[in-house]
Amino acid sequence: MPFDATQMKDWQIAAEAEKNMPTPEEYIDLLGLEKNELIPFGRTPRVDFLKVMERAKDKEDGKYIEVTAITPTPLGEGKTTATMGLMEGLGKRGQNVGGCIRQPSGGPTMNIKGSAAGGGNALLIPMTEFSLGLTGDINDIMNAHNLAMVALNARMQHEYNYDDATLAERGLKRLDIDSKNVEMGWIMDFAAQGLRNMIIGLGGSKDGFLMQSKTGIAVSSELMAILAVAKDLPDLRDRLSKIVVAYNKKGEPVTTADLEVDGAMCAWMRNTINPTLCCTVEHQPCFVHAGPFANIAIGQSSIIADRLGLKLFDYHVTESGFAADIGFEKFWNVKCRLSGLKPNVSVLVATVRALKMHGGGPTVVPGRPIPEEYVKENLGLVEKGCENLVHLINVVKKSGIMPVVCINRFFTDTEAELALVKKVAEQAGARAAVSDHWGSGGEGALELADAVMDACKEEVDFKHLYPLEMPLRQRVDMIAREVYGADGVDWAPVAEEKAKKFEADPFYADFSTMMVKTHLSLTHDPTIKGVPKGWRLPIRDVLVYGGAKFLCPMAGAISLMPGTGSNPAYRRIDVDTQTGQVTGLF
Amino acid sequence: MPFDATQMKDWQIAAEAEKNMPTPEEYIDLLGLEKNELIPFGRTPRVDFLKVMERAKDKEDGKYIEVTAITPTPLGEGKTTATMGLMEGLGKRGQNVGGCIRQPSGGPTMNIKGSAAGGGNALLIPMTEFSLGLTGDINDIMNAHNLAMVALNARMQHEYNYDDATLAERGLKRLDIDSKNVEMGWIMDFAAQGLRNMIIGLGGSKDGFLMQSKTGIAVSSELMAILAVAKDLPDLRDRLSKIVVAYNKKGEPVTTADLEVDGAMCAWMRNTINPTLCCTVEHQPCFVHAGPFANIAIGQSSIIADRLGLKLFDYHVTESGFAADIGFEKFWNVKCRLSGLKPNVSVLVATVRALKMHGGGPTVVPGRPIPEEYVKENLGLVEKGCENLVHLINVVKKSGIMPVVCINRFFTDTEAELALVKKVAEQAGARAAVSDHWGSGGEGALELADAVMDACKEEVDFKHLYPLEMPLRQRVDMIAREVYGADGVDWAPVAEEKAKKFEADPFYADFSTMMVKTHLSLTHDPTIKGVPKGWRLPIRDVLVYGGAKFLCPMAGAISLMPGTGSNPAYRRIDVDTQTGQVTGLF
Repeated sequence: MPFDATQMKDWQIAAEAEKNMPTPEEYIDLLGLEKNELIPFGRTPRVDFLKVMERAKDKEDGKYIEVTAITPTPLGEGKTTATMGLMEGLGKRGQNVGGCIRQPSGGPTMNIKGSAAGGGNALLIPMTEFSLGLTGDINDIMNAHNLAMVALNARMQHEYNYDDATLAERGLKRLDIDSKNVEMGWIMDFAAQGLRNMIIGLGGSKDGFLMQSKTGIAVSSELMAILAVAKDLPDLRDRLSKIVVAYNKKGEPVTTADLEVDGAMCAWMRNTINPTLCCTVEHQPCFVHAGPFANIAIGQSSIIADRLGLKLFDYHVTESGFAADIGFEKFWNVKCRLSGLKPNVSVLVATVRALKMHGGGPTVVPGRPIPEEYVKENLGLVEKGCENLVHLINVVKKSGIMPVVCINRFFTDTEAELALVKKVAEQAGARAAVSDHWGSGGEGALELADAVMDACKEEVDFKHLYPLEMPLRQRVDMIAREVYGADGVDWAPVAEEKAKKFEADPFYADFSTMMVKTHLSLTHDPTIKGVPKGWRLPIRDVLVYGGAKFLCPMAGAISLMPGTGSNPAYRRIDVDTQTGQVTGLF
Repeated sequence: MPFDATQMKDWQIAAEAEKNMPTPEEYIDLLGLEKNELIPFGRTPRVDFLKVMERAKDKEDGKYIEVTAITPTPLGEGKTTATMGLMEGLGKRGQNVGGCIRQPSGGPTMNIKGSAAGGGNALLIPMTEFSLGLTGDINDIMNAHNLAMVALNARMQHEYNYDDATLAERGLKRLDIDSKNVEMGWIMDFAAQGLRNMIIGLGGSKDGFLMQSKTGIAVSSELMAILAVAKDLPDLRDRLSKIVVAYNKKGEPVTTADLEVDGAMCAWMRNTINPTLCCTVEHQPCFVHAGPFANIAIGQSSIIADRLGLKLFDYHVTESGFAADIGFEKFWNVKCRLSGLKPNVSVLVATVRALKMHGGGPTVVPGRPIPEEYVKENLGLVEKGCENLVHLINVVKKSGIMPVVCINRFFTDTEAELALVKKVAEQAGARAAVSDHWGSGGEGALELADAVMDACKEEVDFKHLYPLEMPLRQRVDMIAREVYGADGVDWAPVAEEKAKKFEADPFYADFSTMMVKTHLSLTHDPTIKGVPKGWRLPIRDVLVYGGAKFLCPMAGAISLMPGTGSNPAYRRIDVDTQTGQVTGLF
């Protein structure tokens, strides 16, 4: 330790580090658990959320550290890697540290090569379990979600076949569901573009109800969104009952509770409230819990995992998906509002590569060689691009938090480039540290760890950007101006009409505002880099999620079902039949 | 112990017995495992198949006991209950005993109230885990299966959109799949009749390939059939590569290997080869492994679980699905042929209730009150009905096994009725025992346990009904005459044409014959009871499963996707949000 990351592939580093991973007994010791609070599960045990929260209810929370990033290149700037590295650095300093990240979806894993486990010496293990389903939360969500769809279509069939008297014999009242106004689709955790749009219920009177339907990827499910924001089991149970599955012919919502399927859905999801334990290659514990989308949901690990981590660790590190304009904004105004938790510090990950892109460097395209500007010193591009970093430092500061900038070092970065970024960050008032966790693990992240510990000593006057009372359109306007740097918002007529309805109806008073926007630009256009001026944010529609209680103003297109390409990763994945080991995953 | 089964519901007995279920450490002790051979998993650990088989490869196998039944009423005659009872009885006699049963499907559990865990004092625990997904094998199978369908539809899309040169750039050769000749459908583990027949791929050129498609219940998947018959991991891997997904336009098979998805499918199923441990309410260990259909597959727990049990237990009890004409016949001619294992004895479960039905008693309809004939003494009906028992005793004897008849006692049975059944069984040459495991657990099953131990002392000259070299039509004729008691077989033209093709092609030489027939009659007509004479078995089609290597002659209709009724069980299922306990399941 550390491993030579320039010579070893991630799976090789993982295999070495997995040889002496914590045993269940060691995890119990490491987390200070009672024996019955650890639920055994192969190499990745769960922690019993209810038991720990009850035992530790009077214990003071640890320090709450969020990790976010500047606007990235399409290659990503190593947010998960930095999260792992920070945990390792704090571990090297002898601190009781842990964290949490999202569970990856099977769709990308089977389609595009590459894990979501960090990299180099800042890597989550065990990699195979992490990449292929872990403890089954996504499957549980898939079953619970699809059971609601089974209930919907079967109910429509029975209402079509039977008269009111026959329905009444079964204790059923006609719901009169409008088959042209069904919200929910089926889910599957692969990139199954062939199921995006379909017609189901072909056949006879016992073969279901004939209707158009759709399928999304499992991690886009409202149930996943709910798991990430539920405070506890009663809250999860309550939200599962309020999912709007469809509308009746009067236009009134038909919910999972109306279908009497909400209790059984919760039964299928009963184990998902207990986060799963993995660890860094240096063996700091890290929960993997929930995997919601970053557009229609919060895009970060759960409130449950954060609550648990804050009780168990002196420093709890949590990662937000996408860049700070999306990830931090949702952490700040949605996740922390719902949880009531107050963060101590945010870590803003930046790379010289992304800053050069914002400074006017050539387009970066995944799968193509990286242009020369990105691997040779170019202080001009870095300096110009730093405006994106400064903009996002200032966004974080609006929450009352003074961020720590983590400059994620690549081996092609020069000392002068790194020093320049650090200087700019410090001039903007932030702490800043160059971190080489990829190359050196915790040893390489000591400067970052020290900066974070130092920042955690400060009092934070944490305040949301807008009060819950603020009407929807005003909130969106505020986010657009204060976070994205827009001059205002342009509402499409259909979006504005919906927004007015939501503002007028007290039912939506406690709904969260969940922006849908690309993370590749501060604007809605992913090709525009840096900090654009003189533009307005177009909102073309507003989606509603009744169980998650989200209103999602759409400033961009979202696909809830990605497609499998012509050269997918599954072609190279196999099992060694002598050892049972999975090969070709990474 | 025992619990008052007339006063307590199954879930109440389970809850009591679960209070002191074996811990992982106790299971290690009970099964004589090395510590690293037990894979922790909540209350239901897995046993590492590869490790145990390697360590115990020179150990002599225990006694191999199969449990089957006479032709049942539609209510079932307690085969699982008898399996649990026999294990408990052998346990009470101080024997090292264990067994294995199938995992139930989520479809029936959510649709029709009732677990498949036995009942009374002969019950499998923990019931919630057993009923709701256990260690996730069905989910793993579902993901592996649906990944093949994702690969199929995506490949068809890309072949539609790209020319040969573009495909070649990705290392792909045109498969030219015939969309009118696709074998495989999607799967889901619920009774989703609305997905039985569907049209998918609607939309644009990136939205998949437009085609008709279908969905079956997960446990009907060929992958589940394969898991049940695979001898080991190399065998599983090999069979997963040979699944015929569709045909090309020349009519040649397109397999999972052609789609290059077989390795990844095996990766998703990697954990399924390790059977899960549950136990009886008296704490004898019982594997739960695989859950294949009893018509298109073997309908019993796996060869892997049997091989493991025989290494770990002195007495290993395995249950076959359906009645002896289906379940025992497949155990005898398919499962044991594939495994090479030789059983010591078969237990044939009979009830006074079912015998009365065969003797001419009124029709028994689930959900309606049971007619008086079945709860009052009626020796005439019993005596007449015993011909079904004698017929099936004689079927089992043809394998070289002298069966033990287990008379599964109901509290309405009279002593005279029980004595009569026992006398008839003994006159037919079988051992027989009245067993009250439901009421008294192991104490009530001592007579049965003694009879089974006694039978196990005998040498068995076990021989299959037909040699593997026998052509398909001759095999079916033999099964129809020797097992069902028919006068012969009538082949529909399409079925005979297929049969001739299979007989002529050496590719099918080692395929198993997997009969599809109702279990509610010895004939193909579920309404005909007793032992009908002077009838012929109609075969209307032959299904092929290339990975499982099954040819399935169809003497009846099968639905691979049941429907959810208008009063499904999920309406009553919920979670106690204070304790996390599932309620309403049983």
